[in-house]
Amino acid sequence: MKCRTCGTKAAVNMRQHKLALCKQHFLEWLPEQTARFIKKYRMFGQHEKVLVAVSGGKDSLSLWDILHRLGYQADGLYLGLGIDEGIGYSDQSRRLTEQFARQRGLTLHVVDIRSTYGYDIPTLSALTHRGHNRPCAVCGVVKRHEMNRIARDLGYDVLATGHNLDDEVSVLLGNTFSWQVELMARQAPVLPAHDGLARKVKPLCRFYEKEMTAYALLRGIEYIYEECPFSAGSTTIYYKEMLNRLENDRPGAKLAFYLKFLEARESGLFQPPAEFAQPMYNCPSCGQLTQYEGRCSFCRMMEKAQSHS
Amino acid sequence: MKCRTCGTKAAVNMRQHKLALCKQHFLEWLPEQTARFIKKYRMFGQHEKVLVAVSGGKDSLSLWDILHRLGYQADGLYLGLGIDEGIGYSDQSRRLTEQFARQRGLTLHVVDIRSTYGYDIPTLSALTHRGHNRPCAVCGVVKRHEMNRIARDLGYDVLATGHNLDDEVSVLLGNTFSWQVELMARQAPVLPAHDGLARKVKPLCRFYEKEMTAYALLRGIEYIYEECPFSAGSTTIYYKEMLNRLENDRPGAKLAFYLKFLEARESGLFQPPAEFAQPMYNCPSCGQLTQYEGRCSFCRMMEKAQSHS
Repeated sequence: MKCRTCGTKAAVNMRQHKLALCKQHFLEWLPEQTARFIKKYRMFGQHEKVLVAVSGGKDSLSLWDILHRLGYQADGLYLGLGIDEGIGYSDQSRRLTEQFARQRGLTLHVVDIRSTYGYDIPTLSALTHRGHNRPCAVCGVVKRHEMNRIARDLGYDVLATGHNLDDEVSVLLGNTFSWQVELMARQAPVLPAHDGLARKVKPLCRFYEKEMTAYALLRGIEYIYEECPFSAGSTTIYYKEMLNRLENDRPGAKLAFYLKFLEARESGLFQPPAEFAQPMYNCPSCGQLTQYEGRCSFCRMMEKAQSHS
Repeated sequence: MKCRTCGTKAAVNMRQHKLALCKQHFLEWLPEQTARFIKKYRMFGQHEKVLVAVSGGKDSLSLWDILHRLGYQADGLYLGLGIDEGIGYSDQSRRLTEQFARQRGLTLHVVDIRSTYGYDIPTLSALTHRGHNRPCAVCGVVKRHEMNRIARDLGYDVLATGHNLDDEVSVLLGNTFSWQVELMARQAPVLPAHDGLARKVKPLCRFYEKEMTAYALLRGIEYIYEECPFSAGSTTIYYKEMLNRLENDRPGAKLAFYLKFLEARESGLFQPPAEFAQPMYNCPSCGQLTQYEGRCSFCRMMEKAQSHS
């Protein structure tokens, strides 16, 4: 297999795009495509301040690398979740993220959940969901809340996450199996800014997971290889495996599923009928938007943890 | 495992419903449930004339058996497609269908495609799709046209087919992967009558394939075990296997996927925006409804076959 651009031996063969490229041209191609998607979906411009949520994994570090190379004003945000599980997961991912930022002279904000709120994720989960530990649900609430808070408090226009195509189609398939139309309506490369919430963007949403792995490896980015120890057996991973089998039999199936979904969404398919359109409220405690009147799920969770600790 | 109703040894264990039943109570339960679905989805009443499309397979013969037991006025329609493929597929399925009707004193209409139009399905496919044989596409057009024609000409109110849940979710998943919203809008337990087209109903759409197999076997219905020889390697079978793995891991997943889809459809989700709502035309040759002006796909296919034979 030869590189389409220069004819030398290819390093990456992307069956789904019928495209093979050598290391050099793959490392050029992926950022060029990212720039194209940023423009196509109107994610942000050169003068906007972007906050990249970085976990120390291949996707988010590669995203930060790419935005930096493309000349965007992109700072990082690392959330210390306090997940250890015998492998020092959070410590290691923080170390790799800080090293990445230092080597490139980039600005990184670090928020440690335990030192800010008094509890790490495993403790919060144990205190708030006794008997049926749900660290992933708790972690989701905390991460969303903290990303929104930091973006707002530090005046960022845009919050960028490293979700790749496999992440997106896995969530989409799960939402489709249960026809969660409201969640589908909210799944997009860009969610506009809304009443104090920064715009949210996913510049890598059209790249296959294995493309992102290839990028990080060929670029020489040191990232944490382990998945979060709590993710084993998750629904997301179950659907990823299902979609991997489909992709293996029908190269391009994942991308087609996602792009046709975006088209359908664009045509207004998932806009809930007006009578179902939910009003939003401001949490009286933290000020963030919430679906229900009263304190938001983050503030309620913290209150519950305090009452049980 | 014991029968929930009488406590004797269960013959059928339906994990998806958390329900086990002995032979006798399963043979009562399935028709009762069918009657419930017929009413719930307003398929037809006792005074309407129902035409059941029967293929000689387990689903359609069981459907006919059930409607007969429930006291509905249900006659049969068998379409002789002329598929042999070394196993005498059509001959055998016709023999079993005729035997079924004779044993129960039921009215069966038989239409032989070759003696009516001059070509069987394999010949039609070869004549109209030279080089890329598509018997299933041709067969679909012919069956739809002939079912509509016979129902109209013989004055039936309703056309009933034996599609089971596995059939429905397989098609739904295929349409979902490509977000074919117009096809999704048309997938339902009932399609209302429309300008000369009989109402179309699928009374078995909520039964798992294995429930229907159990019904046919326990009821002692002699049906053709072979699938149509052309169906090997079809997309429908591919998606059925995918969904079987999902169902195995998560009992009830298929039914939940289908029922949540129906809810979403009912709430108006797949109604295309007004500007996309297609006008329908009458074929100047056969009079049936068609999506485009001019002759319908059946009449165009027959014309093409004649010009090439």
